[in-house]
Amino acid sequence: MSLAEYLPFYSALTTAEQNILLSSASYRSASQGDLLHAGGLDCLGLLVLCTGRLRAFITSPEGREITLYRLFERDICLFSASCILSSIQFDVFISAEKDSEFWLIPSETYKEIMASSAAAANYTNQLMASRFTEVMWLMEQILWQSFDKRLAQFLLDESEMDGSTALNITHEKIAAHLGTAREVVTRMLKYFQNEGIVNLARGSIELTNIPALLEIVNS
Amino acid sequence: MSLAEYLPFYSALTTAEQNILLSSASYRSASQGDLLHAGGLDCLGLLVLCTGRLRAFITSPEGREITLYRLFERDICLFSASCILSSIQFDVFISAEKDSEFWLIPSETYKEIMASSAAAANYTNQLMASRFTEVMWLMEQILWQSFDKRLAQFLLDESEMDGSTALNITHEKIAAHLGTAREVVTRMLKYFQNEGIVNLARGSIELTNIPALLEIVNS
Repeated sequence: MSLAEYLPFYSALTTAEQNILLSSASYRSASQGDLLHAGGLDCLGLLVLCTGRLRAFITSPEGREITLYRLFERDICLFSASCILSSIQFDVFISAEKDSEFWLIPSETYKEIMASSAAAANYTNQLMASRFTEVMWLMEQILWQSFDKRLAQFLLDESEMDGSTALNITHEKIAAHLGTAREVVTRMLKYFQNEGIVNLARGSIELTNIPALLEIVNS
Repeated sequence: MSLAEYLPFYSALTTAEQNILLSSASYRSASQGDLLHAGGLDCLGLLVLCTGRLRAFITSPEGREITLYRLFERDICLFSASCILSSIQFDVFISAEKDSEFWLIPSETYKEIMASSAAAANYTNQLMASRFTEVMWLMEQILWQSFDKRLAQFLLDESEMDGSTALNITHEKIAAHLGTAREVVTRMLKYFQNEGIVNLARGSIELTNIPALLEIVNS
């Protein structure tokens, strides 16, 4: 698919703007585990994800992590170009959770197009509002939800994303997604196992009772 | 001050856009405690605060509150017009924390101007990015900071805002700002009192040792 097809505002741009965009964009790839953006320090540009999966997360001063959201095919990563919005004063990290391919639009190009095109600027508004919504959902989970519900929801989400009830993930990694300590995850998973909801093995978790997990989430 | 002086993008608008803006805006007032916006249910419009103070907060299903941020003179409240950004799918509440006066720009007018003016759309981007930054700061506090630090920071912030070390605020209200239960606040304040950092009386808290509060925040 061409870059133009990924950008809903493309047809509203002038020919000159379209040419700037197409000539400056480049097609890139990243391997699973690559760190693509490390907070306010760099300003890679806007990423338009074609294949793969990206993960946006923040870290504590001690290096603890929590996942803010994931980006899938056709999603656009705005925070890797956060330097173009001077009011963004927080550090988001972006890593490739799977081998990924994406269009990269340099920050300066995108900033120039936003400055002249109301369509591009308004689309950027909608992008930021979507991410804001995901972060607010997460905040509400952290504030008002008990950890058993958050963990049950996470297991269900992972299972749906991977299309499998056998998850290859360590307790350490789950802790980094949910912003907690490994021990907390292990304790809750063992409780789930005692209840017959999951089967634990080294480096993997099998979901054996999906209805029970749904019940925990919705209780 | 006229509305035009509050809006940095005003001079970049066409005469027609300026006229639409000025003719549709109205000057309003609210009394302390008034609820100006209740989540996605209503869509009052963009508020440009001239005097007073507004509070943005979210609530749990059980009615517990947490303050997201405050708006002061010259600040613009975007979430009271959240209906114009369809991607905003979360409920923010806005109340007047002091008697306030503001310009109200109807949502439809602002949406129309954003659609045609890149300057207005980009300014809106910066506004949203600022609020996003405040919410991310709060999330990091909730995730990685202990409650004694959050409470100490809150007391220092309140004292600076009011220009006084004697705060007229209940434990209940502090709990609603910090997203916790009243008992948690009372317990920590009593600990602060035992340490000689505050003096508690009915409905008021006197900060008696500012350096000690700063030390808690920075430890």
